[in-house]
Amino acid sequence: MFKGKFITFEGGECTGKTTIINELAKDLKLKGYDVMITREPGGINIAEQIRDIILNPANTAMVPETEALLYAASRMQHLKEKVIPALEKGMIVLCDRYLDSSLVYQGYARGLGVENVLRANHFALDYMPDLTLFIDIDPKIALKRLENRQDKVDRLDSEGLSFHEKVYHGYLEVAKMYPKRIQSIDGTKSLAEVTANCKNIVFNYLEK
Amino acid sequence: MFKGKFITFEGGECTGKTTIINELAKDLKLKGYDVMITREPGGINIAEQIRDIILNPANTAMVPETEALLYAASRMQHLKEKVIPALEKGMIVLCDRYLDSSLVYQGYARGLGVENVLRANHFALDYMPDLTLFIDIDPKIALKRLENRQDKVDRLDSEGLSFHEKVYHGYLEVAKMYPKRIQSIDGTKSLAEVTANCKNIVFNYLEK
Repeated sequence: MFKGKFITFEGGECTGKTTIINELAKDLKLKGYDVMITREPGGINIAEQIRDIILNPANTAMVPETEALLYAASRMQHLKEKVIPALEKGMIVLCDRYLDSSLVYQGYARGLGVENVLRANHFALDYMPDLTLFIDIDPKIALKRLENRQDKVDRLDSEGLSFHEKVYHGYLEVAKMYPKRIQSIDGTKSLAEVTANCKNIVFNYLEK
Repeated sequence: MFKGKFITFEGGECTGKTTIINELAKDLKLKGYDVMITREPGGINIAEQIRDIILNPANTAMVPETEALLYAASRMQHLKEKVIPALEKGMIVLCDRYLDSSLVYQGYARGLGVENVLRANHFALDYMPDLTLFIDIDPKIALKRLENRQDKVDRLDSEGLSFHEKVYHGYLEVAKMYPKRIQSIDGTKSLAEVTANCKNIVFNYLEK
């Protein structure tokens, strides 16, 4: 569809996605690929405005359908304004989270239902990633990694373990929904090993 | 589905909808019905915030999909927070414009395509009006009525006649799409006659 490739990274908190993406981007550039790293809302002004409404703590009356449609609206702006132009130029776009995160976080963990999230994201289904890497690690193990990190309070502690287990369960379900696109990587290994495995999958995909 | 009835009013500018709705509401109340008059975003705070993003003149980069999803998000909030609770109480909800306006204005007149607008409004398709009255009047005739009105400059003059003709054409198409739900009323007659015809249709519908 596009000259470039759209590769997304999924997984719960503390699965190492940011490190993996940065390391992968370096190697891809060394191999001569044009690479763009992004994540929603990706600095896209209109997408940020939409996120502000979603995240405004005063908006307690927001119904799940509205929330899902707002995420979908923000996603389309990021996609059309930033991701698609890069893909059209032939770039490799590495995106930290995409539609699967909505399916998992809103659909499963928040209980909106995966069908409802898919309905709101009808347009984005025309722009599914070429490849998605899911870093598969049980949140009980991921949580332990956090114990010595300073940002602990800001992140995992704000949600209980049961929420993160719902997220993890959601990812396993979504990976089953899209077995061709989503490749699961064992995230319990060392970050160096996980990164190497991700690189292998991406290089094999791009060079096949 | 609900105890109440959801009745919407559609048509271009200067078709008399506001007068018709107010007159109809008076008669319905005299007959003992509980009536609520509304229009999107209907004073619903979250829906207003969403509209502000759509209507912000600085947001020139907004892509059509995002605009359609934002209108759909605003619609769902108005629907769930205001319309559905009234329908659940058994009220007659008279709504000045609803989904058909999006199909016509965004889908046809702005060229987004009716299929795209339907996709964005997937959730609202579960909450279609019980009855829709379309005030059918060629914009060339409606425009003439404006000639002596003070708000002329603010309204029709801001768009050329060709835009209003696209809207009119769109309404004729949408009326064909939903022949059972949408009843067309000849809007070229006097406003008193048009109002009387609308009342007859609504009364017949409610008393059948």
